[in-house]
Amino acid sequence: MTHTDNSTICAIATPPGGALGIIRVSGTRAIEAVDRLFRPANGKPLAQRGGNTTAFGTIAAGGETVDEVVATLFRAPHSYTGEDSVEISCHGSAYIMNRIVQLLASQDGCRVAQPGEYTLRAFINGKMDLSQAEAVADVIASTSKAAHDVAVSQMRGGFSRKLKGLREKLLHLTSLMELELDFSDHEELEFADRSELKSLCDEIETEISRLCNSFAVGNAMKNGVPVAIVGETNSGKSTLLNTLLDDDKAIVSDIQGTTRDTIEDMVNINGITFRFIDTAGIRDTSDKIESIGIERTFKAISQASVVLLVLDASIAMFQWTELSEKVLPLCKDKHVIVVFNKTDLIAEGQDALLKRLIPDDMATAFISAKEKRNIPTLQQLIVQASSLKQLNDEDVIVTNTRHFNALSLALASIHRVSEGLANDIPSDLVSQDLRECIYHLSDIAGEVTTDAVLANIFERFCIGK
Amino acid sequence: MTHTDNSTICAIATPPGGALGIIRVSGTRAIEAVDRLFRPANGKPLAQRGGNTTAFGTIAAGGETVDEVVATLFRAPHSYTGEDSVEISCHGSAYIMNRIVQLLASQDGCRVAQPGEYTLRAFINGKMDLSQAEAVADVIASTSKAAHDVAVSQMRGGFSRKLKGLREKLLHLTSLMELELDFSDHEELEFADRSELKSLCDEIETEISRLCNSFAVGNAMKNGVPVAIVGETNSGKSTLLNTLLDDDKAIVSDIQGTTRDTIEDMVNINGITFRFIDTAGIRDTSDKIESIGIERTFKAISQASVVLLVLDASIAMFQWTELSEKVLPLCKDKHVIVVFNKTDLIAEGQDALLKRLIPDDMATAFISAKEKRNIPTLQQLIVQASSLKQLNDEDVIVTNTRHFNALSLALASIHRVSEGLANDIPSDLVSQDLRECIYHLSDIAGEVTTDAVLANIFERFCIGK
Repeated sequence: MTHTDNSTICAIATPPGGALGIIRVSGTRAIEAVDRLFRPANGKPLAQRGGNTTAFGTIAAGGETVDEVVATLFRAPHSYTGEDSVEISCHGSAYIMNRIVQLLASQDGCRVAQPGEYTLRAFINGKMDLSQAEAVADVIASTSKAAHDVAVSQMRGGFSRKLKGLREKLLHLTSLMELELDFSDHEELEFADRSELKSLCDEIETEISRLCNSFAVGNAMKNGVPVAIVGETNSGKSTLLNTLLDDDKAIVSDIQGTTRDTIEDMVNINGITFRFIDTAGIRDTSDKIESIGIERTFKAISQASVVLLVLDASIAMFQWTELSEKVLPLCKDKHVIVVFNKTDLIAEGQDALLKRLIPDDMATAFISAKEKRNIPTLQQLIVQASSLKQLNDEDVIVTNTRHFNALSLALASIHRVSEGLANDIPSDLVSQDLRECIYHLSDIAGEVTTDAVLANIFERFCIGK
Repeated sequence: MTHTDNSTICAIATPPGGALGIIRVSGTRAIEAVDRLFRPANGKPLAQRGGNTTAFGTIAAGGETVDEVVATLFRAPHSYTGEDSVEISCHGSAYIMNRIVQLLASQDGCRVAQPGEYTLRAFINGKMDLSQAEAVADVIASTSKAAHDVAVSQMRGGFSRKLKGLREKLLHLTSLMELELDFSDHEELEFADRSELKSLCDEIETEISRLCNSFAVGNAMKNGVPVAIVGETNSGKSTLLNTLLDDDKAIVSDIQGTTRDTIEDMVNINGITFRFIDTAGIRDTSDKIESIGIERTFKAISQASVVLLVLDASIAMFQWTELSEKVLPLCKDKHVIVVFNKTDLIAEGQDALLKRLIPDDMATAFISAKEKRNIPTLQQLIVQASSLKQLNDEDVIVTNTRHFNALSLALASIHRVSEGLANDIPSDLVSQDLRECIYHLSDIAGEVTTDAVLANIFERFCIGK
């Protein structure tokens, strides 16, 4: 393993500026390294304490008192990394946290941890498989309920168990195949009873195929469901976006310290993240549909899975025909929602009239973004259009591109196995495809993963994890 | 007490976005509230565990698994607040931290904590006095070694012990005074032996006066030593500032997540924070000293305790006379350092010639900001000019305006006592001043502090502290 060594590693695990901060120390010298700096209030050093206990005291070096801290001791293998570990809970000042790490890292055999190195060690020490390790990063990064739920399920081993089940079936299939090979050596009955093999193979292919298909949903959960808002600017597109963002802001501002930067144009509705794609480019000349920056809109729509077609209800009669002619042809395979905005400007009962403009099977909402009228109805339509539902604990959703790629390769292999069985290809050739399928699934759990791939995975982690 | 109640309080104690996050729960129902959500890996709820222990498990509610966490249990009175407390260490995602707080705060008798409420409870429960509680906020906010050292010393009770010593002396003085009063009732010997009283009183006055005087230093430590860089723009003033900031940036960028905003124009040298004051306003017309935006420069100089007078070494002969005539008169009581910049442009040996321009007793540095030449020498001069030295653990420095104000009132009172004793004022009148002096010192420790003052102090704390 080239990505970690037997150094004792330390790092700050929380951003500065909070009430508290945590320094993580892990490795064979972790306890000794902390004991050199830690003055326990009751005089008993960590080395004389049991695992899973805490001790109050000060961190001091020479005549310098750095802080009053609580040190929590985890003894191998009962720690996150599987090694001896200490977590130092200090005050959340950048000065203090840096000073403690400095004092730890300057000791022999100690150094500052690389990003993801704690989780890498947990993986190496068999505390979790690679897909669980990757889920840890997703858990930390998740900002919506859907993304969080699927990441936690993966971290807790839901996906791993699924993969394990698949590999057991594949090994069973392999042994059946070897039995057939043995048989064929003796009795010229090579292709006699392949029905059991074929049915097991189909079952595996169906499961892998379902996992592959879940990636579309998983990706939407992780990165947000892409939604294009299309319409002329005076139809209230920006007001609508702001209304949706504002509703969300109330939730977001509860999240202390969350910066708007990272969630710009991201809206959580019912725990699902929607990512709104800018279609700025539609000009403010309501009677000249030609002046739409149509290429830009085309691009936005092509990226979207949901399209909101926003009309100014007071002049929708004039907007609909041209807009629908230009836009609807671009929306094959998209969920289109026609949004009549500015209903505050139309007379009561007019909505029924407007509804007749639109094909019956098309989702329609009558709203006033300005007066925040009927926004929940629109939100419900957007959630329905997303095709995402609340997850059961049982659902295994693939969210990681690396896993999707491995599954796609496994699917191709198992499909060749299936074809081989159907076409009476000799067992030894079919077995080769079978081994490939197992290899690709093992890759997800990290059993056959190269150092380069590991390095690539863990360098994306944050420091301290 | 109006600022807290007997609710169990919970709050996020670390900013989101790190590897880990901490939720703090404190109060009579803390253990029960966490146990409702916590599924310990070994099945044993917190209620059945001892204090100062940790337990691994998951936080879950209904069918929802929120995260895998480590819960640390502190039993009253052995906790920060003195109450039963639990710290939940979870993954550092905003979603997870908020969800856990939501699940806790929604329980009967539980709510989200106010800023500073943990420390307020620690104060109310006698875990620390008010000056120590205030130091906690300073510890968290401190960004330089000097500010940190003085805050940690105060948090650990250095200042409190000093105040306690002073109050003991004052009480002794009071009892001596009462003895004298008793005496005088019987024997008409009222002003007989006031020498012991007077000497004790002088001693107290000296000590309080020293504390008051330390505030100038304490304030500089906490808020940075103000430094004005004065000079024409083409003398390399901005390059110099950038060079000083750049040197510092290397240290700062180690501090993960520290934003430049808050330390803009702040530089740490030898653990002391210097705050550079903008003197932009000096025009780029080297031969017209009159065009200096002299009012602005005047203002900057008046705020500064150190003034860097920056000259372009290659044309310093022409700059010095006019600049020194305009600027030096403004620099009474300031530490002036004359900085010859751009020494890369002058011939070797010329610095000796330039040195003769300057009065002998004035600190002088020959540097090249552009080529980073001699910057450490200049930094040393700046540190010397700051008049701040490394603190001994014994030094008590006042950094808090509230404490300074109380000490100033105490000083005035004890001074009146001293005068009263000298001028044979009757003991009962002198005693009144003595009581006032004790009152003001007690105010610092929070023994006589009103609710309004407490509210004002703790509302400045961050959430989770």
